[in-house]
Amino acid sequence: MLSSFFTPASIAVVGAADDPKKFRGKLFKLAVDSAFQGPVHPVHPKAETVQGQRAYPNLAAIPGGAELVLIATPGDTVPGVIRDAVASGAKAAVILSSGVDMAELEAAIGDSGLRYMGPNCEGYIGLDGPAGTFAAVAEAYLSKQRPAPRPGRKVSIVSQSGGLGFALFGRGLKENLDFHAVVTTGNEGDLECLDFVEHLVEEGETGVIVMFIEGLKTPARFAEVASKAANKGVPIVVMKVGRSEAGQRAAVSHTAHLTGADTAYDAMFERYGIIRVFDQEQMLSTAAALARFPHRRVRKACVISTSGGAGAWAADLCGSAGIDVPVLSTALQQDLSEWVPDFGSTANPVDVTANAVEAGGTPLVRVLERLQGSDEVDAFIVNIGLHSPGRIEKLADLLGPVFAGATKPILFTSHILPIDENMAALADLGGQGFHSYTACAAALSGIDRYAAFLERWQAREPETPAGAAKLPHLKPGVLDEADPRALIDAYRIPVPPTARAADRDSAARDAAAMGFPVVLKIQSPDIAHKTEAGGVRLGVGAGEVEAAFDEIIANAKAYDPAARIEGVLIQKMMPKGHELVIGVIRDADFGPLVMLGAGGIYLEVLKDVVFAPPPISVDEAKRLILSLKTAPILGGVRGQKPADIDALAGLVSRVADLARTETKIEQIDFNPVFVYEAGQGVVAVDALAVAVDPDAAPAVHH
Amino acid sequence: MLSSFFTPASIAVVGAADDPKKFRGKLFKLAVDSAFQGPVHPVHPKAETVQGQRAYPNLAAIPGGAELVLIATPGDTVPGVIRDAVASGAKAAVILSSGVDMAELEAAIGDSGLRYMGPNCEGYIGLDGPAGTFAAVAEAYLSKQRPAPRPGRKVSIVSQSGGLGFALFGRGLKENLDFHAVVTTGNEGDLECLDFVEHLVEEGETGVIVMFIEGLKTPARFAEVASKAANKGVPIVVMKVGRSEAGQRAAVSHTAHLTGADTAYDAMFERYGIIRVFDQEQMLSTAAALARFPHRRVRKACVISTSGGAGAWAADLCGSAGIDVPVLSTALQQDLSEWVPDFGSTANPVDVTANAVEAGGTPLVRVLERLQGSDEVDAFIVNIGLHSPGRIEKLADLLGPVFAGATKPILFTSHILPIDENMAALADLGGQGFHSYTACAAALSGIDRYAAFLERWQAREPETPAGAAKLPHLKPGVLDEADPRALIDAYRIPVPPTARAADRDSAARDAAAMGFPVVLKIQSPDIAHKTEAGGVRLGVGAGEVEAAFDEIIANAKAYDPAARIEGVLIQKMMPKGHELVIGVIRDADFGPLVMLGAGGIYLEVLKDVVFAPPPISVDEAKRLILSLKTAPILGGVRGQKPADIDALAGLVSRVADLARTETKIEQIDFNPVFVYEAGQGVVAVDALAVAVDPDAAPAVHH
Repeated sequence: MLSSFFTPASIAVVGAADDPKKFRGKLFKLAVDSAFQGPVHPVHPKAETVQGQRAYPNLAAIPGGAELVLIATPGDTVPGVIRDAVASGAKAAVILSSGVDMAELEAAIGDSGLRYMGPNCEGYIGLDGPAGTFAAVAEAYLSKQRPAPRPGRKVSIVSQSGGLGFALFGRGLKENLDFHAVVTTGNEGDLECLDFVEHLVEEGETGVIVMFIEGLKTPARFAEVASKAANKGVPIVVMKVGRSEAGQRAAVSHTAHLTGADTAYDAMFERYGIIRVFDQEQMLSTAAALARFPHRRVRKACVISTSGGAGAWAADLCGSAGIDVPVLSTALQQDLSEWVPDFGSTANPVDVTANAVEAGGTPLVRVLERLQGSDEVDAFIVNIGLHSPGRIEKLADLLGPVFAGATKPILFTSHILPIDENMAALADLGGQGFHSYTACAAALSGIDRYAAFLERWQAREPETPAGAAKLPHLKPGVLDEADPRALIDAYRIPVPPTARAADRDSAARDAAAMGFPVVLKIQSPDIAHKTEAGGVRLGVGAGEVEAAFDEIIANAKAYDPAARIEGVLIQKMMPKGHELVIGVIRDADFGPLVMLGAGGIYLEVLKDVVFAPPPISVDEAKRLILSLKTAPILGGVRGQKPADIDALAGLVSRVADLARTETKIEQIDFNPVFVYEAGQGVVAVDALAVAVDPDAAPAVHH
Repeated sequence: MLSSFFTPASIAVVGAADDPKKFRGKLFKLAVDSAFQGPVHPVHPKAETVQGQRAYPNLAAIPGGAELVLIATPGDTVPGVIRDAVASGAKAAVILSSGVDMAELEAAIGDSGLRYMGPNCEGYIGLDGPAGTFAAVAEAYLSKQRPAPRPGRKVSIVSQSGGLGFALFGRGLKENLDFHAVVTTGNEGDLECLDFVEHLVEEGETGVIVMFIEGLKTPARFAEVASKAANKGVPIVVMKVGRSEAGQRAAVSHTAHLTGADTAYDAMFERYGIIRVFDQEQMLSTAAALARFPHRRVRKACVISTSGGAGAWAADLCGSAGIDVPVLSTALQQDLSEWVPDFGSTANPVDVTANAVEAGGTPLVRVLERLQGSDEVDAFIVNIGLHSPGRIEKLADLLGPVFAGATKPILFTSHILPIDENMAALADLGGQGFHSYTACAAALSGIDRYAAFLERWQAREPETPAGAAKLPHLKPGVLDEADPRALIDAYRIPVPPTARAADRDSAARDAAAMGFPVVLKIQSPDIAHKTEAGGVRLGVGAGEVEAAFDEIIANAKAYDPAARIEGVLIQKMMPKGHELVIGVIRDADFGPLVMLGAGGIYLEVLKDVVFAPPPISVDEAKRLILSLKTAPILGGVRGQKPADIDALAGLVSRVADLARTETKIEQIDFNPVFVYEAGQGVVAVDALAVAVDPDAAPAVHH
């Protein structure tokens, strides 16, 4: 359906003007100058020609009409233009104008099926198709000779912000990314970012998608679109604003996009392998690496440098990014020493010294070839001076075959400011140059993250749909003891042994059966505040149960002589284990999310908490657990035995099942959950659940 | 003394050659082309002239000799050249050669007082003086018209790595930094980085120093040199490699510099306000900001943007860097609305819209002027498109006065890739352009960190020298109970009430006086393993002391009938408080460091530990405490009362005093230290101390 934007039969530009320096003239000129080969008709109320081409007074006057209409007239004219577009059979429109009355616009479209981009967007450019924009960067791109096709996959940008979408395009061109399309969606009155991502993924020409978003218009569609991208192995690199309160404020005031709960976005991005970035360089470097190199795990890198200091710096930044720079084996170092002089180093970083390049480049290339064939490293950062004109051109005959035969990423960088010529020459050969060690480390980390995700994605268990609610009749409000018990039974939540006793003897018997110490709590539908009523006794030991029972009953009767006393609840006091918290929240954007956090004060002090959408397999639950900052504690420190991570993962997985099945549960907290040592299980010591009528109550916005 | 490098009377170049494309020819040519106005003599064994200038066969032949000698002849000739240099009265040399026999070199220098840079360095360039280098970046710099002087302070680079030193120079020139000198020290056979930092600080032409180091040659000199820089308000921005194991390995193999314990460097950098950076962009952006803008606190920033999306992105990165982007007051927003159209925003980020610049720039400048006069923000990030030629030139008349009158930093940036012309034009006006939001945030954070340091530095208490050891006769080894007691008394370490009792009645009396429960431990010089001997009883309550006393004595006698029993030690079991660890280590580079960490497993799992050199004032100790990741716990969470941070800070300060005074103490650990609620003090529950003979034992390398 969105093919009308990328491969239309014909285009009309409403508001086309003669002066290509003014934005309406520019819009027409860029459409004409674009790679689109079909007819581009100017529409102008009076002019006979626009920029030398025959103009039409309106869309109806165009013989055969136009499939795609670009609109840059004042906002109040847009509904009229759209009515004309519909009448003349147009299928798609790009509304660059702002100040459009949305109700009138929708009325004009009616049930015609016309789809539009915008309003208040900067439009788009398909690098193998039409341009529907007046962006300066697109103008600059189209005014130049188009580069020859280069090895590697192509990148498409999808951005809610027009300014940033095209700014990233310009920065990416400078970094020698090869693009397929740049789309800016503005106010998303109709089509939203996800529509274009979906189209580009299905179309098959895009290898990497870069997104800038303030918040998704239809978060509910995210999982489906992201799954399609994952199935096709198309990584998505996202900058989403709203991590800070000021960023959220700016997004809302900018395009009225709600940024949503940032943690919920993080959870969804993590689940679907979306690589979230925070910086322009990180974004473009990650995209470049994912487009240029194979998707493979990168755990160990080799740094090869003509400058010892630079090699050390690059190695440090790999370390910070979690990528190991291991000492090479003696045998491998022995082999490398054939090409590395004595005053260099073969250890890793490999200091090939300036000779390696100045002597024609053979030593550098031999070192690379030898290491490509070794399984000791997964990727390379090659630091040479890229400031001299002709440096890469002179190495081209040697480097070309290395890049062509490479199964492992080879990233080039330069301590001395590199010149554009050398960076472009690298890309022409199928390589990629990066401007900094930070960029290299981000790129390697991005490759690894995506490859790890693909492994998980391809190995994942088939997702079964959520079953019917096991507890369809939950009453809204905080659940009383009967309802959580039903939940606990239905989802096998391990809780402390619990019994209800109507008399002192059975209380003593029950307590003895579960083991001491125990807790006794009065059971009465008429006593809400049990502690205040003297109806709770903690730490009751063997031989103390009968007296405690009598005391509680007496206290309750004294507190409220009219109260109906149903007996006493007896619960075993559990020994302390590792303390965690498991919960369920409902995010306004993405629905139920399972929360897992460090217990006690560490959750809030360290913000040691992760979220994930259900379903959560046991394997996925283990990954979640291990992603906690305090996870090493569960692994066993200071000679402690490891904790029962299997049991904890099982519980997380079942809570996730609960979260997606029991749609009436608005919120649930198991806090604390005690995790015992391996084999000893877990226990949810306390539970709080709140039910709503999902048809009646709106979800809470976090 | 180092003035011979920067303002010599005359220079000789030994090894000067005709061809300026070869490195010896280049060395001579750059010395001639440099800003140095005095004579530069080529020394060549045979040639009559070099590059058209009269050559001398050796240094002795130069009438009047040369104050500074640049040497690029093969390593084995260097000692001979140095002998000639000494004989002819030279005061300084730059040894660019590698492969020099250091013993021969030292013999050649003897007691002449000649000082040298290198060997195996790329030399240096003084931008207002001589060049002693063949670095390509220096050549490119000297081949161009020198820029006119610009407002702001100058930057000097001091680097152990020649490649990186000049690479950073080249990258800095591109970022419009104004430089005073670039020095690369290579193997530091004589002069080291700190010597040049000290000289540049004292000379007074340098406003910011940028260092690249692998490790300091003489760490003991660091504090003195860094203090001089702090006294003059000259910030030092450092990249030190060795954070990762691979980085350390590379540094050692590169120039044989030991990188030292990275945490010790962090502690020293923190104490002396050195800004440690990890990335080239962060380094140069921080240096640019410190050179261009006043040293002032930056807690709150205002983001002004012509693109809403870009404003949100910049705001998010400020948030990540700990800089607030507050909503402006209603009154201020009212004022700004005069220049901000309705479809923009005055909230902060201030979306001035593209009109603000395209309409001549007046709205942008008025907004800046109004905000400069407000105390609601401390600094500005201004994002406009800097891609159009002439953009800043057209705004120059408006922006110049704003920059000239600015008391608060104004950082310019651009979502669209900026062109060099606009970035240079900003610097010419006294502004500064940055390539990314990350760079802006790093720059603001650097300004704030340095200003905060200067405040502390200038307000600090005068440092008193360490007094004489209070315990001069400590025996080497693990200290037994008598010695820690002496230490504990001398430095007022709060420990649990403790008593020694020879009989059961006094044991009971002592225990009753300190309060229950207590611990009883057998006291015998012949029983090393007290627990094994049944000589320890924990948790002894009221009325149980006599029996426990008897039992311990009996156990001990049964265990070793010959043992001399001196009685029983009684110690109060302290109630649990917040658990921390305080210790002292001796770093091989920097000497004693005080360690403060989270207690228990959190120290290792969260790496929640900080180090600082003594002395540590109580205020400084509070800063240390608050820099712990788990510090919020001490502030009181979940309704807990705040902990006694005053008492803890006092203890840290006294331990620091112990660390610098008792030089025989190699290591001491108070673990755990319980911190009670405010007013209730702290107690060191357990202490371990190790003494050495400082004259006999080498310090341990961590």
